[in-house]
Amino acid sequence: MVSKQRRHRYALILAGGRGTRFWPRSRKASAKQVLDLTGAGPLIRLTVERLLPLVEAQNILVLTSGELCEAVRRLLPEIPRRQILAEPAGRNTAPAIGLGAKILLDRDPQAVMGVFPADHHIGRAAAFRRLASAAWREAARGRMVLLGIEPRRPDTGYGYIEFPKNSLRPGSLEPAPVARFREKPDLATARRYLRSGNFLWNAGIFFWPAALYMERLRECLPETYSRIAALPAFGSRRFPQALAESFPGCDNISVDYAVLERTQGVVGLAAGDIGWSDLGSFEALYELAEKDAAGNASRGDLLALDASGNYADAAGKVVALLGVENLIVVDTPDALLVARRADAQRVGELVKALEGRGLKALL
Amino acid sequence: MVSKQRRHRYALILAGGRGTRFWPRSRKASAKQVLDLTGAGPLIRLTVERLLPLVEAQNILVLTSGELCEAVRRLLPEIPRRQILAEPAGRNTAPAIGLGAKILLDRDPQAVMGVFPADHHIGRAAAFRRLASAAWREAARGRMVLLGIEPRRPDTGYGYIEFPKNSLRPGSLEPAPVARFREKPDLATARRYLRSGNFLWNAGIFFWPAALYMERLRECLPETYSRIAALPAFGSRRFPQALAESFPGCDNISVDYAVLERTQGVVGLAAGDIGWSDLGSFEALYELAEKDAAGNASRGDLLALDASGNYADAAGKVVALLGVENLIVVDTPDALLVARRADAQRVGELVKALEGRGLKALL
Repeated sequence: MVSKQRRHRYALILAGGRGTRFWPRSRKASAKQVLDLTGAGPLIRLTVERLLPLVEAQNILVLTSGELCEAVRRLLPEIPRRQILAEPAGRNTAPAIGLGAKILLDRDPQAVMGVFPADHHIGRAAAFRRLASAAWREAARGRMVLLGIEPRRPDTGYGYIEFPKNSLRPGSLEPAPVARFREKPDLATARRYLRSGNFLWNAGIFFWPAALYMERLRECLPETYSRIAALPAFGSRRFPQALAESFPGCDNISVDYAVLERTQGVVGLAAGDIGWSDLGSFEALYELAEKDAAGNASRGDLLALDASGNYADAAGKVVALLGVENLIVVDTPDALLVARRADAQRVGELVKALEGRGLKALL
Repeated sequence: MVSKQRRHRYALILAGGRGTRFWPRSRKASAKQVLDLTGAGPLIRLTVERLLPLVEAQNILVLTSGELCEAVRRLLPEIPRRQILAEPAGRNTAPAIGLGAKILLDRDPQAVMGVFPADHHIGRAAAFRRLASAAWREAARGRMVLLGIEPRRPDTGYGYIEFPKNSLRPGSLEPAPVARFREKPDLATARRYLRSGNFLWNAGIFFWPAALYMERLRECLPETYSRIAALPAFGSRRFPQALAESFPGCDNISVDYAVLERTQGVVGLAAGDIGWSDLGSFEALYELAEKDAAGNASRGDLLALDASGNYADAAGKVVALLGVENLIVVDTPDALLVARRADAQRVGELVKALEGRGLKALL
């Protein structure tokens, strides 16, 4: 028996990104979310498996890109094909969530949607599900809810969410009111946030009634709202053509910036230890991986001699490291990357350089 | 018309080594001498082509290992098959040259042999040939002649040859008497040698009458001499079996140590600039290679971002280097090496480690 609450529960998985920081493993046609980066399985597959105990496969919607759509469908056979949908153009999260909300509302005006990035790692799935269940319950009461991650370091790559002093009870499943959203800070500011204990990382995981989101979209991004609200019913013959014509005209903007920062009454759940990582770069994979006594992490056979702190990924091949430290070594059949771990965030620059050289086969 | 002198000219090419410092490119069945390490061709092929204007192909003898024999024969189709011979066991240069001398003497008691490593690089072939011709002429007068290379740096990896003060005229083709052989020196000693101007590197290239070498071998290594001198005639039915039984009992020792250091009247020719390198390691390949503005050398496509002083060899693959300096990156289908250039001499240690792990397929 599906409870009344659970009956209206839906998941929107956002899988439109490209993940150039994982080049040469990630390519246009095999982006980060469809790769098995941790060895546990393709990230989008793990994302869905994590949710299946909470949401019927029939109630999961996936938005991705045209290049990835077929690959995603192959990885998620339990989800109805038509619910794995290509955005006609990447327009960031505010329009994508709007499109998802519209599609869900066509089916269930009481839909309460959770929004999940397809390409995050969550090591403790059961803890995550307790949290998500609590968030869905809270959202079903008509609120906008987000998951926040306790900062582990003064990271300058995340948006931060500020809460009133002493309001956070990590892992307690008790929501706290959001005081303010903060853009990616500089290092000094990030350090201050970390010390204060009132800040969480914004993990891009949200819960709200689909109807409430559309209402907020109408106020915050009226042009985008109109384009999405005017689409014919999902599943109708006219839908695909109308989407292709209308969606590219939406604002290209994130939900955080366009909607959440301008909305009162948003609440947050401090995740506690759910083993979350956004897998932002090879450095994140290194941090998650098991390491030998010298701090080397490897997928496949590694032979390390006076080598320490390295991350090697060259499936099916022995990697021999001699005298080197803190490197990323990633091998694929047509491209090989050797980078400093400290430069992991810059790997995307190589993809830009390849684009500049017209080496399309490698993108 | 072949001149009288040239008629007795023979070349012995020593191709028995393994070259583990070029792993993973070098393997037991594709050792350094059969590899195209510089991009100009397999080293042994280049060695023979360098000599062919001076010596008939019929007069070239190659000693190699059982593992490499067929590969060497394929690379040297102009040399009669039976003159490309596998030593039953590696016994260093003194016995190998003895075996070569014996085989040549069976054919021509007046044979004057040049001895050449199969795996050196010589950039200026014409200059080398002028020098080798002069050396053969000198050897035909009944002398033991060696080529010496002017030191370019205080290298501790070579044997040095000392000459009387002010006796060396590099590139003059005038032989000078050897005063003394010096083992691989420590750095301070090597610096002193370099400053003095009286020292040359021993390049392992020798010229002498085959009969004179056998005479010296009889005095210096009588047991080895007896084993070799007692072999049946080369080409006879009994030769292979007798060689297989007798040769492994020879002393395992170098010609420098066993014979040259104990022989009076050896002369040397200072090579001048013949572009010599023994290609001792990937570092030597880096030094020879063309480099980009940041000092990166690469075989194949290289994409370097804030990367300098690196050597990359990954044929058929783009190598992307980000933020790394002074590395060796060598890719093969089943093994990938990343090492500091400063550790180039230590690459052989990896091969030992693989042997220790029983990873025979990679040796």
